[in-house]
Amino acid sequence: MRVAVIGLGNMGLPMAVNMVKAGHDVVGFDMREAPLAELAAAGGKAAETAQAAVANAEIILLMVVSGDQAEDVLLGANGIAEKLFPDAIVVAACTQGPKAAADLGRKLEARGITMLDAPVSGGVAGATAATLTVMASGPKAAFEKARPVFEAVGKNIFHLGEQPGQGSTAKMINQLLCGVHLAAAAEAMAVAERAGLALSDIHKMISQSAGNSWMWGDRGPRMMQDDPVITSAVDIFVKDMAIVIANAGSPEDLPLSHVAHARFAAASQQGHGLADDSQVIRAYRTK
Amino acid sequence: MRVAVIGLGNMGLPMAVNMVKAGHDVVGFDMREAPLAELAAAGGKAAETAQAAVANAEIILLMVVSGDQAEDVLLGANGIAEKLFPDAIVVAACTQGPKAAADLGRKLEARGITMLDAPVSGGVAGATAATLTVMASGPKAAFEKARPVFEAVGKNIFHLGEQPGQGSTAKMINQLLCGVHLAAAAEAMAVAERAGLALSDIHKMISQSAGNSWMWGDRGPRMMQDDPVITSAVDIFVKDMAIVIANAGSPEDLPLSHVAHARFAAASQQGHGLADDSQVIRAYRTK
Repeated sequence: MRVAVIGLGNMGLPMAVNMVKAGHDVVGFDMREAPLAELAAAGGKAAETAQAAVANAEIILLMVVSGDQAEDVLLGANGIAEKLFPDAIVVAACTQGPKAAADLGRKLEARGITMLDAPVSGGVAGATAATLTVMASGPKAAFEKARPVFEAVGKNIFHLGEQPGQGSTAKMINQLLCGVHLAAAAEAMAVAERAGLALSDIHKMISQSAGNSWMWGDRGPRMMQDDPVITSAVDIFVKDMAIVIANAGSPEDLPLSHVAHARFAAASQQGHGLADDSQVIRAYRTK
Repeated sequence: MRVAVIGLGNMGLPMAVNMVKAGHDVVGFDMREAPLAELAAAGGKAAETAQAAVANAEIILLMVVSGDQAEDVLLGANGIAEKLFPDAIVVAACTQGPKAAADLGRKLEARGITMLDAPVSGGVAGATAATLTVMASGPKAAFEKARPVFEAVGKNIFHLGEQPGQGSTAKMINQLLCGVHLAAAAEAMAVAERAGLALSDIHKMISQSAGNSWMWGDRGPRMMQDDPVITSAVDIFVKDMAIVIANAGSPEDLPLSHVAHARFAAASQQGHGLADDSQVIRAYRTK
C-alpha cells in the first residue's frame, strides 16, 4: 500500500522501515534530517513537507509525540487534512487520552475523513522487531483496509470497537493495571520488609504463585535495590495515572487507580519523581 | 523420618500418602475413620488418638483447619505438647494469621518445643501431585531437619525467616496481591464495559501486555460471564483481605488492600457474597 508516516522518531522510524521491508510504498516526513536519510537508505522516500508526504498516500500513520501534535499536523497551519488523497485513512498511532482521540476523530469525520485510533505498545524493541501490539478502533472496513500496514509493524493486531477513542481506552486500561499492580507490588514488598522476610525468596515464591503479575516480575528485582537503574521514572506513572483518572470514569469507578496515583504522587513529592518507578516503594517506607 | 500427620482432610491425607511414597514412616490421626483407613491402605499407620500418633514422631505436621484448632490439638485437653518425643519438631502447616502463628510459636517455645510456621499453597491438586509451595519460617536448623518431609509434599520449599509468623506473613502477602489484582481486574474490565469495547479482545490483549497478572488470566474469563461457575466465593476474599488488614500493618501501610477489601465487601453487601469471586465486578456496576 501507499503509506505516509508522519513522525520518524524512536518508534516511527523503525515502524516505517518495517513497512518498507513488508513491501509497502512508504513516504516519511519528520522535522529532522537524520531519520529522513535513514528511511531513504532503507528504501523509503523522504518528503520535504507533511503535505507532500500525504499527497498520494492511502494510509497516513501519525507517530508524533502527542495528541495535540497530531491535531496540529492534521488541522493546524499547513495541516494535511485538506491535502489527503480521496478515501485516505488517517491512523493516529500516537499515545493520547481517549477523549482527545475521540474528539480528533469527530473533527476529521466532520470533514469526511476516516480516522482509526490505533495506539501501540511494545516500545522501541517491539517497533524494531515488528512485534508491536496494535489497539485499534474506528470503522471496521477502514481497519481491514489498513490491516496489511498494521501487520507490517505488529504481531498482535486488535480491532476493539467502531469508535475512535476505544483504542486509546484499551491502552489506558493496560496502564491502569500496570500502575495498580506496581503500587500493589510495593505495598506487598513493604509488608515483607517490615516482617524481616528474605525478600529475594519472597520475590521468587510470589513469582510462582497466584499473586504474580507482569509488573511484579519486571519491577520486583529493582524494587529490592536501593538505587536501581532508571528504566521509567516515578513521574511517568504520576502522569499516566492522572490520564486514567481524567478519562476512565468517576472517582467511585476507579478507587484503586486513585490510590495508586496517590502513592506515585507521594513518592514524587518526597523527591523521588525521577527515580525508577519501582521506587514507589519509598512512599510505603515513611508514614 | 518418623512423621505424625494430625488432620487427614483434603490436604492432609494426600500429603501423608506422599510422605509414605517418599519412604517416611508415617502415623496419621483424624477424627474420622475413612481417611485413617485410606492412609493405612497406602502403607501408613493409623493412630487412635493424637497423643498416640506423636509418641515416636520426629516431625509432627499439623494440617488442621485453623490456627485455633492447631492450638487446641497442642495445648488443649489431651493436648499432644506434653507427649512429644524429645527434640520433636512441630510443623504448623495450616493456614492462620501471622500473629496467631507467632503466638503459638512462643507458647511452644516456652515449653521447650520448636515450631516451624509452614503454610502451603497449591491446593488439593498440589497436595496430590506433591507440588505444593511451602512457606516456612522458624529456626533454620529445624527447617533443615524437616526438609526431607517438605520435599516429599512440595516442589518449591522456602525458608523465609527465623521466626514463626514469617511463613504465614508470606502466605498473607500472596493473598494481598491476589485480592488487589482481582479487584483491579474488575476495575479495568468495568472501564472496558463502559467504553463498549470488545471484552474478549481486551482480555486477550492485556494477557499479552505489561498489565497482565495471574488473576487476570484466571478470573478474567469468568468475569466476562453473567453467572459463572463458583470456584471460590466473594466472601472468601472478604475474609482473606480482613486478615491482611488485621495483620499486615496500619491503614496507611495498606491503602490498596483496604480499597480491595471494601470492593469485595460491597459486592457481598449487594447480595453476591456466595457468587464466584470474579463477580466483584458487580460492585463496579452500581454507583
